[in-house]
Amino acid sequence: MRHFLTPLDLSVEELDGLLALADDIARDPAAYRGVCAGKKLAVLFYEPSTRTRLSFESAMLNLGGSVLGFSSASSSSVSKGETVADTIRILSCYADICAMRHPLEGAPFRAALYSRIPVINAGDGGHQHPTQTLTDLVTIRRRLGRLDHLTVGLCGDLKYGRTVHSLIAALSRYPGNRFVCISPEELRLPAFVSEEIADAPSSALTETRSLEEALPGLDLLYMTRVQQERFSDKAVYERLKDCYILTADKLAAARAAMPVLHPLPRVNEIAPEVDDDPRAAYFEQAQNGVYARMALMMTLLGLGPVQLGEGAPLLPAETQKNLLRCGDKRCITAAEAGIDHLFVPAKGGTCRCFYCGREGE
Amino acid sequence: MRHFLTPLDLSVEELDGLLALADDIARDPAAYRGVCAGKKLAVLFYEPSTRTRLSFESAMLNLGGSVLGFSSASSSSVSKGETVADTIRILSCYADICAMRHPLEGAPFRAALYSRIPVINAGDGGHQHPTQTLTDLVTIRRRLGRLDHLTVGLCGDLKYGRTVHSLIAALSRYPGNRFVCISPEELRLPAFVSEEIADAPSSALTETRSLEEALPGLDLLYMTRVQQERFSDKAVYERLKDCYILTADKLAAARAAMPVLHPLPRVNEIAPEVDDDPRAAYFEQAQNGVYARMALMMTLLGLGPVQLGEGAPLLPAETQKNLLRCGDKRCITAAEAGIDHLFVPAKGGTCRCFYCGREGE
Amino acid sequence: MRHFLTPLDLSVEELDGLLALADDIARDPAAYRGVCAGKKLAVLFYEPSTRTRLSFESAMLNLGGSVLGFSSASSSSVSKGETVADTIRILSCYADICAMRHPLEGAPFRAALYSRIPVINAGDGGHQHPTQTLTDLVTIRRRLGRLDHLTVGLCGDLKYGRTVHSLIAALSRYPGNRFVCISPEELRLPAFVSEEIADAPSSALTETRSLEEALPGLDLLYMTRVQQERFSDKAVYERLKDCYILTADKLAAARAAMPVLHPLPRVNEIAPEVDDDPRAAYFEQAQNGVYARMALMMTLLGLGPVQLGEGAPLLPAETQKNLLRCGDKRCITAAEAGIDHLFVPAKGGTCRCFYCGREGE
Repeated sequence: MRHFLTPLDLSVEELDGLLALADDIARDPAAYRGVCAGKKLAVLFYEPSTRTRLSFESAMLNLGGSVLGFSSASSSSVSKGETVADTIRILSCYADICAMRHPLEGAPFRAALYSRIPVINAGDGGHQHPTQTLTDLVTIRRRLGRLDHLTVGLCGDLKYGRTVHSLIAALSRYPGNRFVCISPEELRLPAFVSEEIADAPSSALTETRSLEEALPGLDLLYMTRVQQERFSDKAVYERLKDCYILTADKLAAARAAMPVLHPLPRVNEIAPEVDDDPRAAYFEQAQNGVYARMALMMTLLGLGPVQLGEGAPLLPAETQKNLLRCGDKRCITAAEAGIDHLFVPAKGGTCRCFYCGREGE
Repeated sequence: MRHFLTPLDLSVEELDGLLALADDIARDPAAYRGVCAGKKLAVLFYEPSTRTRLSFESAMLNLGGSVLGFSSASSSSVSKGETVADTIRILSCYADICAMRHPLEGAPFRAALYSRIPVINAGDGGHQHPTQTLTDLVTIRRRLGRLDHLTVGLCGDLKYGRTVHSLIAALSRYPGNRFVCISPEELRLPAFVSEEIADAPSSALTETRSLEEALPGLDLLYMTRVQQERFSDKAVYERLKDCYILTADKLAAARAAMPVLHPLPRVNEIAPEVDDDPRAAYFEQAQNGVYARMALMMTLLGLGPVQLGEGAPLLPAETQKNLLRCGDKRCITAAEAGIDHLFVPAKGGTCRCFYCGREGE
Repeated sequence: MRHFLTPLDLSVEELDGLLALADDIARDPAAYRGVCAGKKLAVLFYEPSTRTRLSFESAMLNLGGSVLGFSSASSSSVSKGETVADTIRILSCYADICAMRHPLEGAPFRAALYSRIPVINAGDGGHQHPTQTLTDLVTIRRRLGRLDHLTVGLCGDLKYGRTVHSLIAALSRYPGNRFVCISPEELRLPAFVSEEIADAPSSALTETRSLEEALPGLDLLYMTRVQQERFSDKAVYERLKDCYILTADKLAAARAAMPVLHPLPRVNEIAPEVDDDPRAAYFEQAQNGVYARMALMMTLLGLGPVQLGEGAPLLPAETQKNLLRCGDKRCITAAEAGIDHLFVPAKGGTCRCFYCGREGE
């Protein structure tokens, strides 16, 4: 049984198969009705995320399956002190596959350790949101026909934007991609992201402060939202939130076939007038998200044409137990008592928390 | 593609077809199982309304379709600042038809402008609630066999009760109906409702303060609830809430075939002893509401025997853009920045806000 | 039409049929797919209980039916002052069967009086939770092959734990069972429970303060959680909550085939190391809960192999109306105005509130 916790959980070959399947679904969704008949998806959303949740639900319904679950912690009984491990063991009795959204980083990883059904990470705090990345890849592939040798502009909040980090990691596995990072000084791409791709097939990464200067050279523009909830200082947010707004004027300098992506919701970082431009790909991204999740779920359930291998073990043999501590307050290890602190080997000889991916103390 | 935003969105001929279809469904609901197989209804309830939401869900499930959505704004991520326009564009990727309930007037109208799927208004503030009217009409037609030449008593809160306003507008399209408005002085029918029907086939409208005097002459009695949430002054509410209570005693003077309708929930405006009277039609109204919504949804999806015409354009050619301002705080134009203020020609040479229906400033 | 409000609503013969059906379902769940095709379950959860709700939903989906409802009072419109009687009359139009969870004792009993569809009590305050008992019985029967001549250990909160009270009542209908009550002084089994079984086929009941002493003689151990919400004094809770924790050490003295049950969620009353012991039956209990509810729902809908008799009338002929008053604040009679106080004859010549089961004043 395989889970989907990070965008890199699939090999490039498996990913390519999944993307081709999503493309096939997009051409004829009705052909896949009934593939998951009798299967039940559990949506375990410990924090609200309407768009992601409904995309999963729509996908499973399109496949002829059904859905159960909860859409916020307040309408569930999670307050009774049950651990994620116990919850997933029980949910494994109720459903065939689950999508978990959790405010704590690593919660879906914790669930995967105890689950009898495939666990899909539907967003764990600021950590990972791999089905968004899958959606982005499906959209790029459908628009541009390939995932390699692209000049990819990434604009907005590159510091906190986990979708950007994941997209860079995912695209860097393909040869010849160049990343152009467009952000204010305060929201620059963190070093740990750029370092991560140092030896990757795509390792070219440049930075700029100017969207206008970067635009003409891009094959693809990925816009992100400056999210208020990421700022402790309101004044900094107010000053930055309107930076890097894409308008029709700016877009005039871009290539004719340069798709504009955005993980949505957008607030005002893309002017409404851009919506009618054929390069605007962000609403079709929402549609592709359904196809991506259809492809993913049928594959994890072993019902699609794509065969997954055994996959790497969740915990590699070298995993260290309680030798290091994860000091991050947003990590599941900080919220639940009695969880072993697990550290797995990472690049550069470091060890990272199995749950949240941070270095230990 | 047609939407259903107000009771008058359907022509009388279309409405008659729909009511006949609902009647047919009521006779044999099982015959319609499977009509909407593979179709998905999105319930977008930005405020809770269990009865209306479950009626829609029951209807779609009866048709063999499935349901997704949310039941309150708090368990959705609408707080992230996304516009209604963007939300519906995304939801159009997830579902085949949607029912929207919103505390702001005009929100479903806004959605319809950007939607790729039929939008049903499931209640927008105090503005419109057209499927309730459809339910009322199905019930009257099934009880009395016709929608014309009826003496219709309307009792209770006629000032704020949007269901009453809509029912008058809908029935006034049929010939020979007489409306008897029974309310306290403070809750009289507003002039804009009575003026609206001035040239209608049914234009006879009388007022009385006494339920008992009116009762013997009625073909039909429509009771409404005095809703606490409509009053800013609690004392006024306390004084009025028990007025115009229907009891078995009062009902003794009514005709034997006079159905009693009520949009529900009822608090105490109909005494429980009336429930067992064969004239009590308010619980069967709930059942008819499911049939009405089944008929509506299959028709809007183009799957029923009723063929809808092209319909009038959402925005008539004479629509004025930003010449007038809508000053209403409960209108969607007051809540979302950047919405054009649209005004459409109305009766008496006035212009009304496309969203909330109020006159401009 | 039959309801399921207390574990004793079924005769022993009916119960045995239901348990055999659940066992049959457990052997081949897929054989029952489609049994409830076209049927709709309404989950009416006036307070959140994720586990119970999802178990019901999973069960109905397994049977090919569908689900609608609400998961908390806040996302429903129950605040509008509608009575339980009116709500169930309306819900009877929307669904074929319902499961009701309510913080007020007796609410599902009230609903049953007015319902046109079978009502299942999914937990009413601290009163009854009969599908949990059904789940427990299925698990015991599947593990031990019988429900009679067992020495049953019950450990933890025996005072407030309604699951324990119900299990004792249910098992006492079978011959030869012995109950060993293991609890701190403060949480002893109440007299009304032990008195209730005085003339039952199983009437042997002993008490002890020591889990370790009791363990070797048990055929079955039922652990319960010391629930914080049952205590008004936090200090008492803190002192008691860790009592009677089951560890691998203690378990070493138990019989090899002694299953450990727990209604879940468990907090720390069972150490995690016990999870891997083959005697741990609490997670398979969650799976059995789905089978139990599948068996129950198909039977109440008249679709299974088990035929139910007429059953006793909800209100026996001797029911007293408004002669006594129920003084309990947690009873539905205290929360809704205008409900008749109904008292039914009980053991020992007393009369008990039809709704909450307490003696009158």
